[in-house]
Amino acid sequence: MREVAVLGVGQTKFGELWDRSFREIGIEAGLQALVDAKLSSADLGGLFLGNMASGSLLDQEHIAPLILDYAGLAGRHLPAVRVEGGGASGALALHAGYLAVASGQYDFVVVGGAEKMTDVPDETANRITSSTADHEWEVVFGATLPALWGLVAKRHMHDFGTTREQLARVAVHDHAMAGKNPLAHYRNALTLEQVMGAGEVAEPLGMLDCAPLSDGAAAVVLGPLDMARGHTDIPIRIAASEVACDTMALQHRASVTTIESTVVAARHAFARARRAPADVRVAEINDAYTISALVALEDLGFVEKGEAGPEFATGRFGLTGALTLNPSGGMKAQGRPFGAVGVAQVVEIVKQLRGEAKDRQVNGATLGLTHDVGGTGATSVVHLLERPN
Amino acid sequence: MREVAVLGVGQTKFGELWDRSFREIGIEAGLQALVDAKLSSADLGGLFLGNMASGSLLDQEHIAPLILDYAGLAGRHLPAVRVEGGGASGALALHAGYLAVASGQYDFVVVGGAEKMTDVPDETANRITSSTADHEWEVVFGATLPALWGLVAKRHMHDFGTTREQLARVAVHDHAMAGKNPLAHYRNALTLEQVMGAGEVAEPLGMLDCAPLSDGAAAVVLGPLDMARGHTDIPIRIAASEVACDTMALQHRASVTTIESTVVAARHAFARARRAPADVRVAEINDAYTISALVALEDLGFVEKGEAGPEFATGRFGLTGALTLNPSGGMKAQGRPFGAVGVAQVVEIVKQLRGEAKDRQVNGATLGLTHDVGGTGATSVVHLLERPN
Repeated sequence: MREVAVLGVGQTKFGELWDRSFREIGIEAGLQALVDAKLSSADLGGLFLGNMASGSLLDQEHIAPLILDYAGLAGRHLPAVRVEGGGASGALALHAGYLAVASGQYDFVVVGGAEKMTDVPDETANRITSSTADHEWEVVFGATLPALWGLVAKRHMHDFGTTREQLARVAVHDHAMAGKNPLAHYRNALTLEQVMGAGEVAEPLGMLDCAPLSDGAAAVVLGPLDMARGHTDIPIRIAASEVACDTMALQHRASVTTIESTVVAARHAFARARRAPADVRVAEINDAYTISALVALEDLGFVEKGEAGPEFATGRFGLTGALTLNPSGGMKAQGRPFGAVGVAQVVEIVKQLRGEAKDRQVNGATLGLTHDVGGTGATSVVHLLERPN
Repeated sequence: MREVAVLGVGQTKFGELWDRSFREIGIEAGLQALVDAKLSSADLGGLFLGNMASGSLLDQEHIAPLILDYAGLAGRHLPAVRVEGGGASGALALHAGYLAVASGQYDFVVVGGAEKMTDVPDETANRITSSTADHEWEVVFGATLPALWGLVAKRHMHDFGTTREQLARVAVHDHAMAGKNPLAHYRNALTLEQVMGAGEVAEPLGMLDCAPLSDGAAAVVLGPLDMARGHTDIPIRIAASEVACDTMALQHRASVTTIESTVVAARHAFARARRAPADVRVAEINDAYTISALVALEDLGFVEKGEAGPEFATGRFGLTGALTLNPSGGMKAQGRPFGAVGVAQVVEIVKQLRGEAKDRQVNGATLGLTHDVGGTGATSVVHLLERPN
């Protein structure tokens, strides 16, 4: 396999972008990434676009060629492929783009992620996001994504003594980080009291335990590592791109406090890269709900099962800690445009590894991890990204 | 790049499968393909699933891991990736799966295509299929896919003298073929008079010029050509897998009677395979509307621009002609479960090249072509499939 590197990154602001269309934000992120990689559109070999639900949200399927078209690239010999895997759509698009470059058929491809979620009423958007859980076994009975993650949280509290306050710390952490990120949806600081006192969504999760619905787009340019010269001074190598699956419905799992797909994807990612969790200096992990981040820390191997709550309280995941979590602010505070998240995670890690993250720069990071999840974990995708020595 | 071959195929009946769920038909096709390739599910490296609109049609996104789950493969280290590109979703999934095997990261993958379209009212399904055209520039003004292809037909008649009867011959041909295909949605013969006398949908296209909405699934197993031994006696090599794009909206094209994406994809496919259109003995091409097939014949290079109507009337595309078209019955008669079509085309060509097509077997075929289109041609995908000497 050819080695693959990230040569350029781009991202729009995340938030309620009511004055901008889906195609506009997709193009903005993609062109930023191309310019960052010192490529013209003539060099483009393909587009792999992560998106969860443009059909339901915007009455528009077939969106990958739509973006190309409005970028002035119609009539070209290149694949424009939309990839969907619920909330993991962006990371799966990255996986597909990575395979495309690794195969040798394409040299330079853009991997984008885009979602426009705030043009429809919240209840419509929530119904659509819940379609990433099992419709026949969960959703028809009234389960939504927050309800399902609420069950995970209750069980985690029961089994391991995780507390309401420990959950809330994740949201406080994310908002503190997002304060340093000009692209974030929510940059306001939160206190533990605010998070714990917010209206309940699905006990024990309150409104501030749940990532928002956002509009936004992110993009990266991938290319062969050995063709990186001239495009970037610091090509970021994709050391591993691994995907694993689990049951769609929570009820079909041996345990609801372990996301088996994350365990499996992470184990294979570290094996492929010949690295260990302790080598990771900075990570963007799934924090769609505060409980999601605690479970992810455990399943990725950063802490022992059941220990994430107390470990989080030690502050070791802050900007100057041994492992900095979600310096972008994560889904909770940077925002959650579903299909864009997995790509935005990589954008953040690349900025960190290049030393371009400004106020939120992590010192001395050479290995970063991204972790994106669909539904309640039927899909998990783990990427390891490495700065050359 | 590693050479990639088709090692197994599977397909459900196409039609109104009201007693069977999406997950059931997906699993049936996939397991058939695995069995055909003498593989157990333990050998599976990944699933790439073409599907246009399960979110809008079934309130279920995130369907690739859903299929894996119900096939008993939860908790596994493998990518389950849904690929969407309107009506070209199946062929794009094949392209993604092909790249995955070519890359060397995966050995054996299933490429599936599935769509369940008849559980909703026809007007809902028609609205959803039209979301593969440009929503902001076409659909909001009332354009639907048949209306847009009707415009193409009118212009083709104006520019080249194509007649109503020549269009109708495509439907008659497809139904004659489908009579020999037990999996086809419509196996009844049609006369020219029936097609020309059917109710108008979008002038000049009548009801029998338009492919139906169908339920159905198809699957193939891809693997490295050099690992084919033991899995099949006749590995069918993918000699080319090429994708090209065009504008989403018809009105933005220099000509509406040429699908530029098809011209470009075909040219690159023949160049990669070092073959010419005259080498192709059997082809499954886009016949979503009768006019689509005539335009495709021209754009793929099988006939000169404007000559498809008269050439079709000569009968040279029949079972014993020099180039047999759509022996499965095509979308018009085998049926059109959108995301399954591009995979079903490959299933048919593989059966033909292996000599397993029974009543509809084409003699002496060693090179076959498939051609799948999204919307009115914003995406075209061309595959060339070759039987070893």
